Amino acid sequence: MTVASFHPPSRMLMGPGPSDIHSRVLQSLGRPIIGHLDPEFILMMDEIKGLLQYAFQTTNQMTLPISAPGSAGMEACFVNLVEPGDTIIVCVNGVFGGRMVENVERCGATAIKVEDEWGSPIDLNKLEDALKANPDAKAVAFVHAETSTGVQSDASAIAQLARDYEALTIMDAVTSLGGTPVLVDEWQIDACYSGTQKCLSCVPGISPITFSDKALEVIRTRNHKVQSWFLDMNLIMGYWSSEGSTRSYHHTAPVNTLYALHESLVMLKEEGLENAWKRHQRNHQALKAGLSALGLELIVDEAHRLPQLNAVKIPEGVDEALVRRRMLSDFGIEIGAGLGALAGKVWRIGLMGQSSSPRHVTLALAALEGVLTDLGVSIKDGDAAGAAQKVLLA
Amino acid sequence: MTVASFHPPSRMLMGPGPSDIHSRVLQSLGRPIIGHLDPEFILMMDEIKGLLQYAFQTTNQMTLPISAPGSAGMEACFVNLVEPGDTIIVCVNGVFGGRMVENVERCGATAIKVEDEWGSPIDLNKLEDALKANPDAKAVAFVHAETSTGVQSDASAIAQLARDYEALTIMDAVTSLGGTPVLVDEWQIDACYSGTQKCLSCVPGISPITFSDKALEVIRTRNHKVQSWFLDMNLIMGYWSSEGSTRSYHHTAPVNTLYALHESLVMLKEEGLENAWKRHQRNHQALKAGLSALGLELIVDEAHRLPQLNAVKIPEGVDEALVRRRMLSDFGIEIGAGLGALAGKVWRIGLMGQSSSPRHVTLALAALEGVLTDLGVSIKDGDAAGAAQKVLLA
Repeated sequence: MTVASFHPPSRMLMGPGPSDIHSRVLQSLGRPIIGHLDPEFILMMDEIKGLLQYAFQTTNQMTLPISAPGSAGMEACFVNLVEPGDTIIVCVNGVFGGRMVENVERCGATAIKVEDEWGSPIDLNKLEDALKANPDAKAVAFVHAETSTGVQSDASAIAQLARDYEALTIMDAVTSLGGTPVLVDEWQIDACYSGTQKCLSCVPGISPITFSDKALEVIRTRNHKVQSWFLDMNLIMGYWSSEGSTRSYHHTAPVNTLYALHESLVMLKEEGLENAWKRHQRNHQALKAGLSALGLELIVDEAHRLPQLNAVKIPEGVDEALVRRRMLSDFGIEIGAGLGALAGKVWRIGLMGQSSSPRHVTLALAALEGVLTDLGVSIKDGDAAGAAQKVLLA
Repeated sequence: MTVASFHPPSRMLMGPGPSDIHSRVLQSLGRPIIGHLDPEFILMMDEIKGLLQYAFQTTNQMTLPISAPGSAGMEACFVNLVEPGDTIIVCVNGVFGGRMVENVERCGATAIKVEDEWGSPIDLNKLEDALKANPDAKAVAFVHAETSTGVQSDASAIAQLARDYEALTIMDAVTSLGGTPVLVDEWQIDACYSGTQKCLSCVPGISPITFSDKALEVIRTRNHKVQSWFLDMNLIMGYWSSEGSTRSYHHTAPVNTLYALHESLVMLKEEGLENAWKRHQRNHQALKAGLSALGLELIVDEAHRLPQLNAVKIPEGVDEALVRRRMLSDFGIEIGAGLGALAGKVWRIGLMGQSSSPRHVTLALAALEGVLTDLGVSIKDGDAAGAAQKVLLA
């Protein structure tokens, strides 16, 4: 077998992540490698910590990137904070809440599920009932922005409720970080993890994470060793702690991927969080106007809708997989399929990070209109791109 | 805080990894990202599986890269094969054997340690005694090439012994893969993991792994769920399985890092494994000749010495950290410190992958001779680079 070098096809990524990556970040990836204990690398690690604190809006000392994807970031929160026999309340309104339940159970703990419809936000009354019924619950875990449905829940209110009942909070901010406000300190979230390949527009493979001092205390005073050696925060802090000379080897950091994370965070800082949030909102409004011109609806109620992840109802009788294939083959545009309970029922159009731009919105709408028309699907007003322009250029 | 883009200093990496990376691999990293479920990406994933089978010299179907560093590859082997209550024999002759013990214990199993001196290979007689004393041992775990000492153990004989007592084998090939023979099928190893940042000269952050059919059967018939959701091979196979259309989402693959792994494996295939092994051996011989001219000794017996990782005894009275700092500041050359029991006692000079070249050997020796001379350390014959040339140009 002879294998040639791989050259990726030209794509525009508008699915649930990864999103498109700026050339500055791609170029940073290809810079020569240096050692993971090199003094210059360690200075860069400190900058990454500071930049992540900005992104998470926190002063938490334990704020750093886990050397593995978002699902490992999720697991890091659970294996460090949960011990066998604990009770954890998990809000489930999509795929990722379900994954949290798996995590709790694999820690030998009991998961009390608070379930809501896919596409609806977490119901605070149901959560309060669960907290009342389980006074020993150690933590409330929830997904801030459900990538599987495009819904955002009220993190501030959930965290307040958890505090009222003396429970910690574990928050999934994989899709929200950099796209909509994630205010870790203001909301008093105890553990929060994210991904890099969504609104940060970096390569996938690392998971930014932050723990409050209260969470740290829980980790330090555990009765059992953390079941994962690789994700044991007691050990990881030995490498990421700020005292340079006492830094101890845990695992080899993903050097070049961290170059890319650094660059993407520098770009976020340059743009400013508020501006990034506004940009995601504006492009979402434009997309919505265009979809509306095509007669397409979003499944999530306006009040809880994520601007960066748009779950679009598939019109009756349309072969949704064929539409996605045609978008990819004819235009090189990737949009996402439904996941779990929404498989076959929605397309997921991502406007995340670099993929949240007037260029993406305009082209995706024009391409979608063309494909649907070619497949004989009846559309409402048409000129979806034009409808988007009215918002974008207003 | 304003943060500027990070530009790494110019380095030549000759520590215990990461090693230098070829420009072909660095350039592949910076190619535009595509989706992790893109049909073209899936074709590339299949090529990676085939290329890893070549690197491991195996036909194992379950051969793939874990989306996290080598220590997660280690953990993947243990959490999938070990269940609470199991007994695992772990050979410990360096840092990484010790880490295996941690992994076994965190799975709720008992680790029976077979300990050897740091710098010595695993003693087969001691291992056989442990197997006799623990007839219910489920597996024997060992490190093929100890990165902390530079010693290589007899994997073929260890695996044969394990089979004689009906135990599985778990082998760490982090530092050996691509540098010295790793013959998974010929030796009948049941689970083997490696790293990418050593002799494969790829970026750190992923861990190639392979499981035999016998190991797969053990994983499929477990009594308990795998304690890590992220590392559960039952789930990972759903994404990496070869039937393209049934491929199911588990986590977002590290797309660009896999571009780099693909390119580094294509380069290994082009060179040929046997040629890569010979190259590592030749450059090691040259380094040895040069070190000898300086009066420096390797701590490992010639018969068990790894060509790619050279643990050099620190001469009496030399400030070893100062020497490393001078190598870095005056020449941009990184050599490694001792780890664990060998901290302060050895330098670790890596000749791995792209860092195993006549250029690296020559410059490192000349620089080391210069620094030692400048520090007033008495050296033996001198002209270390010249001594190396005699081997290299013979």
